[in-house]
Amino acid sequence: EPDDAPPALVVVAAPPDVTGDVVAAELTAHPEAVVTDVASVKGAVLHALREHGADLARYVGSHPMAGSERSGPTAARPDLFVGRPWVVVGTPESAPDAVLAVRNLATDLVATPLTLGADAHDAAVALVSHVPQVAASLVAARLRDADPAALDLAGQGLRDVTRIAAGDPALWTSILAANAPAVLPVLRELARDLGAVVDALEEAGSAGTHQAVPDGALGTLAATIAAGNAGVARIPG
Amino acid sequence: EPDDAPPALVVVAAPPDVTGDVVAAELTAHPEAVVTDVASVKGAVLHALREHGADLARYVGSHPMAGSERSGPTAARPDLFVGRPWVVVGTPESAPDAVLAVRNLATDLVATPLTLGADAHDAAVALVSHVPQVAASLVAARLRDADPAALDLAGQGLRDVTRIAAGDPALWTSILAANAPAVLPVLRELARDLGAVVDALEEAGSAGTHQAVPDGALGTLAATIAAGNAGVARIPG
Repeated sequence: EPDDAPPALVVVAAPPDVTGDVVAAELTAHPEAVVTDVASVKGAVLHALREHGADLARYVGSHPMAGSERSGPTAARPDLFVGRPWVVVGTPESAPDAVLAVRNLATDLVATPLTLGADAHDAAVALVSHVPQVAASLVAARLRDADPAALDLAGQGLRDVTRIAAGDPALWTSILAANAPAVLPVLRELARDLGAVVDALEEAGSAGTHQAVPDGALGTLAATIAAGNAGVARIPG
Repeated sequence: EPDDAPPALVVVAAPPDVTGDVVAAELTAHPEAVVTDVASVKGAVLHALREHGADLARYVGSHPMAGSERSGPTAARPDLFVGRPWVVVGTPESAPDAVLAVRNLATDLVATPLTLGADAHDAAVALVSHVPQVAASLVAARLRDADPAALDLAGQGLRDVTRIAAGDPALWTSILAANAPAVLPVLRELARDLGAVVDALEEAGSAGTHQAVPDGALGTLAATIAAGNAGVARIPG
């Protein structure tokens, strides 16, 4: 091979709880190759690789933000990555040509490569993916014992909120456990705000008439919806 | 007029907190007419009408399950009600021809009329509409202070979960306060399950490696996602 041939690239696609072990094994099995992974959590993988004493110069994490709640061969799509963000997560030890090899993989698949550190990546996906998954699952779980007549009233809103609740339990258990440090603070804030809504509804429910509901309770409900307005407006169009 | 002419029909479209007052006024202003309303909460409206001593023989509640997070003339659609559920909520006092007049309104607009009592209606919409609204707003609220780089990772999942978070704060405050008795038990169950997820993530986060996470914590996370699977599978396709 000529000296300027691009390095061989190994792509590890495994659940987050075993990705570090598989990447470490691939780095050992292919001592000239760059190894990347596509797990949706990056800090835990890096932590596992450091414990293995892996050759981090040849490791670059990545996370293509594509896919759906469906899995298996029948869910395959040739345009899966087109135009989607592909996060490239180099480590302080990553060699520049290793980072370039992973960026090139993303652009070859017509994805849009973005660069983030492992901690920033994990905080971002907690916010835009892992916490929404938990919320969707909790809402959908309420439907298990619902009267069929209630489900006949389901509209597009319920369908949209709960679509991702069809995700795989084993995969999501692995993701959530691996990203617990980033998911926890966001879920705690959500639980705090939910508690405020419950308190406000208790005041409203015991008031008897709308006119008798305390202004503070109505203010909490309005502020909750207004905060959601402000948040959803920030999602790029 | 011949004796068998259908009764005149007044349709009240107002936020739930004032719907009872407006319906009572319309029943008085039009002593021969049937009056219906389209508020998304029915028990509170009926309660207000009883307090007014209204002529309930000529009142039939209704709730067309249509519309979106958008409002105003530019959101108008000629096919808004086509194929959508339209809940007809008669009272024990409602005259049969009053119920028929409201059913005919639904079928004239090509909606699908369904019959429910006020309590069953309110429990159903708490489950399929009001609790999903609160959850979507709480998830979206977390995005207010997000790093723009995190928002660049937003995919269809986040967009779907948070779409209805763009709803109007004043309208939703009125809906949630009016339906507090039905929304509260569902939100309390959701808060209880959320607390269990937070506890499990605390155990996972302090375990250091995935192998060290207690089985009970992993079991809670898997059960949460599996419960969501079971719930979303019940939504009619």
